[in-house]
Amino acid sequence: MNAQPVVKFGRHALRASIAVSAVLAVTVLFAQAQQDPLPSWNDTVTKQAIVEFVTDTTKEGSPTFVPPAERIATFDQDGTLWVEHPMYSQVIYCLDRVPALVAEKPELKDVEPFKTVLTGDREAIAKLPMEELEKLLAATLTGMTVDVFQAEVQKWIASAKDPRWKRPYTELTYKPMNELLGYLRDNGFKTYIVTGGGQDFVRVYSEKTYGIPPEQVVGSAGGTTYTYGKDGNPILTKEPKLLLNDNNAGKPEGIHLMIGRRPVFAAGNSSGDREMLEYTEAGEGPRFAMLLLHDDAEREYAYGPAQGLPDTKVGTFPQELYDEAMKDGWLVVSMKKDWGQILAPGQ
Amino acid sequence: MNAQPVVKFGRHALRASIAVSAVLAVTVLFAQAQQDPLPSWNDTVTKQAIVEFVTDTTKEGSPTFVPPAERIATFDQDGTLWVEHPMYSQVIYCLDRVPALVAEKPELKDVEPFKTVLTGDREAIAKLPMEELEKLLAATLTGMTVDVFQAEVQKWIASAKDPRWKRPYTELTYKPMNELLGYLRDNGFKTYIVTGGGQDFVRVYSEKTYGIPPEQVVGSAGGTTYTYGKDGNPILTKEPKLLLNDNNAGKPEGIHLMIGRRPVFAAGNSSGDREMLEYTEAGEGPRFAMLLLHDDAEREYAYGPAQGLPDTKVGTFPQELYDEAMKDGWLVVSMKKDWGQILAPGQ
Repeated sequence: MNAQPVVKFGRHALRASIAVSAVLAVTVLFAQAQQDPLPSWNDTVTKQAIVEFVTDTTKEGSPTFVPPAERIATFDQDGTLWVEHPMYSQVIYCLDRVPALVAEKPELKDVEPFKTVLTGDREAIAKLPMEELEKLLAATLTGMTVDVFQAEVQKWIASAKDPRWKRPYTELTYKPMNELLGYLRDNGFKTYIVTGGGQDFVRVYSEKTYGIPPEQVVGSAGGTTYTYGKDGNPILTKEPKLLLNDNNAGKPEGIHLMIGRRPVFAAGNSSGDREMLEYTEAGEGPRFAMLLLHDDAEREYAYGPAQGLPDTKVGTFPQELYDEAMKDGWLVVSMKKDWGQILAPGQ
Repeated sequence: MNAQPVVKFGRHALRASIAVSAVLAVTVLFAQAQQDPLPSWNDTVTKQAIVEFVTDTTKEGSPTFVPPAERIATFDQDGTLWVEHPMYSQVIYCLDRVPALVAEKPELKDVEPFKTVLTGDREAIAKLPMEELEKLLAATLTGMTVDVFQAEVQKWIASAKDPRWKRPYTELTYKPMNELLGYLRDNGFKTYIVTGGGQDFVRVYSEKTYGIPPEQVVGSAGGTTYTYGKDGNPILTKEPKLLLNDNNAGKPEGIHLMIGRRPVFAAGNSSGDREMLEYTEAGEGPRFAMLLLHDDAEREYAYGPAQGLPDTKVGTFPQELYDEAMKDGWLVVSMKKDWGQILAPGQ
């Protein structure tokens, strides 16, 4: 692709070109297209960059055309597709499961970390050491059949509510990102979730929530064991054996394992996504790396050094990540400036 | 589905019903459909069973209708989609790689198993102990970047030829099975390969050979490691660390890991496929488990106790597997009786 025009939000991007008459261009583009596929995005250079990339990679005969089979788009979930603060939803699930677990096994009620979790004291819970947290995850995410786990998550998803918005967690998705997923799919991209969260957990609601089928969810994954139940029927049991830690370097490794192609488009919001964005952007031809900034304390949350705020354990975003994005020309999205709406209205 | 008609080649199949006027029914069916989607299949009860299953699971309003999203079909590769005798093609690849490997690392030429492989003495090679074979696989399938590996396999696939047919290995696919893959896809099924062979190996040619994209190939898979090359660009290196041994119980475990849904349709030909067929067949609602018999010594190969022949290490098929298929009503396909043509004509 060297001698051809480069549509690439990466090392060689002609970023200056984007800034020219952005609003006008977007207006003209959508006047032609009749309908704006990204109505929750403000008419900024960011939106224009997305529309230009999709247009240039999907127009037959374009020098930066990408064949449909290669249009792989990967999205981090927590903090990229839905709210991750103050705590990852899956961790809330694990905490919420403890009372039922202790009811089944009363001997756990005086054992850490279950004892602390049962007090409901979120500050004390937040201070639990990593090895205690791992016990919590193992006890609530493994040891049951995949069918039982799926049913438990389904039930929780249907009833649990986020305390700030008093709405189910699956309603706390970002409307602009759901529009982007749909826009990419309408243009022949295959959309994937590539999450540090549990693959089996996210697969329960991904189709309904994001239009992404279970087989297009890559996440942290444990092994299962195939045995036969009392009735002779096969059973798959979730084991506390980690096969893929789908964070940091684990993201491109997981993409290779589960998809086998390098993405053309990737979006993330924290240091756990860094390697996925680098890997995507380093491919030949047109590539798009998008990094989301949580900079809207009023409508959502603001965190991290890029906001002049202390970094956080949930969705870490060190200054170096921002510097790398700037240096390599990834598209940085400001939730505050680029998004007209963040959450879809309550139902 | 209990009170509804069961279209299931499984424990409760009404196998007797299939046998009634099969040829006539197939003829009528295709007279209506105008074009036979399975022209290389003889007009037997086997073909009728396939057509009936696909018709009954895809007709809107049918009591055994399967929604498109759930139409997952999984196929073993070696011996199910292409020839596996006298030796798995990937093993031939590993053997063929040895001279190039020794040219790069001359110190290997006096070390086992490379020393024996270099003699070209297939009988001596066949006697190499498992631990030596594992060294061979590790040396030829790992230690390079995923891109280098892909290029090497590509080159081999384009030039290597099977000694019996003097044709590239990718031409030794079964025409009836390729038709079946296409027929299922035309009816909204998502077709997957679920192979004991190397996932990275099969992904190189799966799209061109079977119309199955890399992301729909589940196979034995090793880990990779993400690092940066001298130019600072990301590199994924194949490691000799097995993440998934996609044989026997590893097949349903791999299906859960990589697809996350239980197949509706599965096909295999050896004991390595047993658990995949059981797992598929044990799901609720309509399911189809197909077991292929290698019983045509003239046009392909005949092997295994079900043919009254000794079992083989390549594509083992013990008598118990045949008995289980009979007991549980899996559809057993005879290559000799059910296939009008086995290989596509040479090009």
